[in-house]
Amino acid sequence: MIEEITIRYLDSFKDQKPVDPLFIEGLPGIGQVGKLVAEYMIHMLGAEKIGEIHSIYLPPQVILDETGLARLARNELFLFRGEGKDLIFLVGDHQSTSNEGHYLLADAYCDIAVELKAKRIYTLGGFGVGHLVNEPRVLGAMNRAELRPELEAAGVRFDREEPGGGIIGAAGLMLGMSAERGIDAVCLMGETSGYLVDPMAAASVLAILSKLIGVPVDLTRLNERASEMEKVIEGLVESDKLQKDEELTYIG
Amino acid sequence: MIEEITIRYLDSFKDQKPVDPLFIEGLPGIGQVGKLVAEYMIHMLGAEKIGEIHSIYLPPQVILDETGLARLARNELFLFRGEGKDLIFLVGDHQSTSNEGHYLLADAYCDIAVELKAKRIYTLGGFGVGHLVNEPRVLGAMNRAELRPELEAAGVRFDREEPGGGIIGAAGLMLGMSAERGIDAVCLMGETSGYLVDPMAAASVLAILSKLIGVPVDLTRLNERASEMEKVIEGLVESDKLQKDEELTYIG
Amino acid sequence: MIEEITIRYLDSFKDQKPVDPLFIEGLPGIGQVGKLVAEYMIHMLGAEKIGEIHSIYLPPQVILDETGLARLARNELFLFRGEGKDLIFLVGDHQSTSNEGHYLLADAYCDIAVELKAKRIYTLGGFGVGHLVNEPRVLGAMNRAELRPELEAAGVRFDREEPGGGIIGAAGLMLGMSAERGIDAVCLMGETSGYLVDPMAAASVLAILSKLIGVPVDLTRLNERASEMEKVIEGLVESDKLQKDEELTYIG
Amino acid sequence: MIEEITIRYLDSFKDQKPVDPLFIEGLPGIGQVGKLVAEYMIHMLGAEKIGEIHSIYLPPQVILDETGLARLARNELFLFRGEGKDLIFLVGDHQSTSNEGHYLLADAYCDIAVELKAKRIYTLGGFGVGHLVNEPRVLGAMNRAELRPELEAAGVRFDREEPGGGIIGAAGLMLGMSAERGIDAVCLMGETSGYLVDPMAAASVLAILSKLIGVPVDLTRLNERASEMEKVIEGLVESDKLQKDEELTYIG
Repeated sequence: MIEEITIRYLDSFKDQKPVDPLFIEGLPGIGQVGKLVAEYMIHMLGAEKIGEIHSIYLPPQVILDETGLARLARNELFLFRGEGKDLIFLVGDHQSTSNEGHYLLADAYCDIAVELKAKRIYTLGGFGVGHLVNEPRVLGAMNRAELRPELEAAGVRFDREEPGGGIIGAAGLMLGMSAERGIDAVCLMGETSGYLVDPMAAASVLAILSKLIGVPVDLTRLNERASEMEKVIEGLVESDKLQKDEELTYIG
Repeated sequence: MIEEITIRYLDSFKDQKPVDPLFIEGLPGIGQVGKLVAEYMIHMLGAEKIGEIHSIYLPPQVILDETGLARLARNELFLFRGEGKDLIFLVGDHQSTSNEGHYLLADAYCDIAVELKAKRIYTLGGFGVGHLVNEPRVLGAMNRAELRPELEAAGVRFDREEPGGGIIGAAGLMLGMSAERGIDAVCLMGETSGYLVDPMAAASVLAILSKLIGVPVDLTRLNERASEMEKVIEGLVESDKLQKDEELTYIG
Repeated sequence: MIEEITIRYLDSFKDQKPVDPLFIEGLPGIGQVGKLVAEYMIHMLGAEKIGEIHSIYLPPQVILDETGLARLARNELFLFRGEGKDLIFLVGDHQSTSNEGHYLLADAYCDIAVELKAKRIYTLGGFGVGHLVNEPRVLGAMNRAELRPELEAAGVRFDREEPGGGIIGAAGLMLGMSAERGIDAVCLMGETSGYLVDPMAAASVLAILSKLIGVPVDLTRLNERASEMEKVIEGLVESDKLQKDEELTYIG
Repeated sequence: MIEEITIRYLDSFKDQKPVDPLFIEGLPGIGQVGKLVAEYMIHMLGAEKIGEIHSIYLPPQVILDETGLARLARNELFLFRGEGKDLIFLVGDHQSTSNEGHYLLADAYCDIAVELKAKRIYTLGGFGVGHLVNEPRVLGAMNRAELRPELEAAGVRFDREEPGGGIIGAAGLMLGMSAERGIDAVCLMGETSGYLVDPMAAASVLAILSKLIGVPVDLTRLNERASEMEKVIEGLVESDKLQKDEELTYIG
């Protein structure tokens, strides 16, 4: 019988032990903010893949690459070995399709963090506000009160009211579940409309995360993507306005 | 692997044994009536927290406090030590997200009642009627016929027809499941519109519960909250009327 | 931990063994046809309760009687001891709330039939046609081809096309699952609109079932209930026609 | 307790071992394309039934044949013994009703392929495009890059963009899950509107599959069915046009 959750490390990884790594979770979510940040970092830092996670709680499908090669929906682990700054990344195709699966997967992710001796977890996500945001704030949450000053110093904002609904999925659960394991965890949420993939929110989150972990990441390409997106949105807004004007003219 | 349901007692509780306690369940539900009553009692009586319940059947999220500190969605146990009147309270963020989870959680709650040697269980809830209620009745149900006279003497009402759909969730299941364990259980349901958090219904339930358990609780602050809510509702009704009048004027 | 499905026989039953009983399933379903038939038979024959079934796959609620006494949602077993005609009845509040639960409960019901050495199973239900039916046919299905002549001789009808969607829930699954256990099983489905509780369809099913099992049941009261229902429906149809006439008048 | 998934081989099969068989999956899906192809092949080649699969993850129902004989919803295995070309077919009534069930069933199917020493798996399906298709392409996917040239030589098309959403259900999961077991697997998807059972798409898939596996299958009857379907659709389109013309006339 298939395991409910399977974690496999690549053979290439089995000899090496990351040293006091930071664990960065960037799974899909609102505005794909966390996913954009983590995948951009993996790309820019040249992190190497070290493992894969499959689960019956992920959607029951295969993903095709552009050549037609199929693979199961999965999550992946990457490792960046910096100078005294090892980073583990958790990225992937999907989160759980069921409530119970969210708990079981987040539990498995925390077990990985323990096994790899992560000294801190950063979970990344978007905070959906339902309208376009020009200068996205980065809201924070943490699983130990003493972490807040450090976050504020790096520009993380705290809003007594937001996010009022809590944090759903892996980005939230890992905060709660790592506390029980004695690992500090921080969630960074980029403000986003929530309607579109949002590289602007991602750039805001990455700027602050980079400062917090002390690993510089060149933001140029992400900012370019953000600018392109901004033009797309301006186009949409403009055409929407035009349409409304036309409607008015037509009606008038 | 994570447990489906985890019950943890605080170290501070482990030495002390409550004596013949009454078990009061006030989890979220219709009009938040049960939750309001139980949390108000905990506050006014100065009950102390003795344990926490986590479960994969609760929503997969963390709750943030106003400083950004995150914790898993959970239920909590509190203890009030009165003179010969120990009370255990079960309160929390959520009920189960699945049907099966409702059964499994209610079973765990009844196990707690057995373990703490509860001599009776009171489950609290709202009874939604779909319209505003001026003087909310408190309807009752029990898991042993002989309990009814005592309830009626305290002002609990019984309606042959209501609630026709039975009682759903922990407030209902604990009645059925504690019967099998030989524990008497009573459900008190405050009549409520079901649309809003309802401190008026809560005050009605608390007045009767206080009488039944012989523990006086000062109702002043809950009544104040009820009065404020009443004004809010009057405001809503008024503005709704105004709007309707305006519409009529406009159409006319 | 609670069992997923619990079957409890009453102490009063434990000494007696039914002799070659027939097993009659009448759980809730379309038009409540099966439930009406089985409960009517239990009442008219004076069958005695012998057991209860609880399960986390039933809805998570308690049912109240008219005095406010609460009990878990459940299914029940009744026994009628006739002369060489023992009958076991399976009736109850609900069927499963999940697909998997339907299988697990039907499996438990078949285990009961095996344990009580049932020589045949009759499952009862409604066959929804979406319009009012004046003289409801009783459609049949069986788990062994050789049973059909006997059914046809008793007035059961077979329609090559109906029911095209198969038979869902306990009435269907028990046919399939008892075949594997070597028990003959027959499903009788009364044609019904499917919109209302349908004593007419129930009377049709009962007349045929009574013939098949050789146990006479006085149909008078069920036919009376059917007549009352017919008047209610005529009233509805009439008022609907009137309304339509009025609308026409109004428009005209 | 019932097994979650039960696989039973017929006694007639137990002695014989298929030799290096190909495994062909044709379960229900978009346009019923895979099901049409596999059932047509079973019929035309005279493949024999060798086993049955039941599961609590299939819909909780029995299927009736035209005589009223009921059987559990199921999947079936058939074997065709060609000259050095043994074929195993997996067909059936339904796929899983839950996400987790899809994984568990696909895992069981792959176990069967391993047990029967399948040297390659072909999964068949439809690729829904949302509009009528005149000359349906057959899109491909595979679980090992080296398989692509052979597929292209047989006329399978690869589209960098399609199917963008991956492949859902058994046809997809078996590709991913057989890779882990070291079995080559290919998915063939016939382009189809997705609105109707589509024998045209099925004929396109079968023509290519027949070439790939080196087993000739007479397409005449499937092509006839496709022609009939084409006429039905033309009729629908025509009547739709007429209706639109009439509406215009009426309005005009």
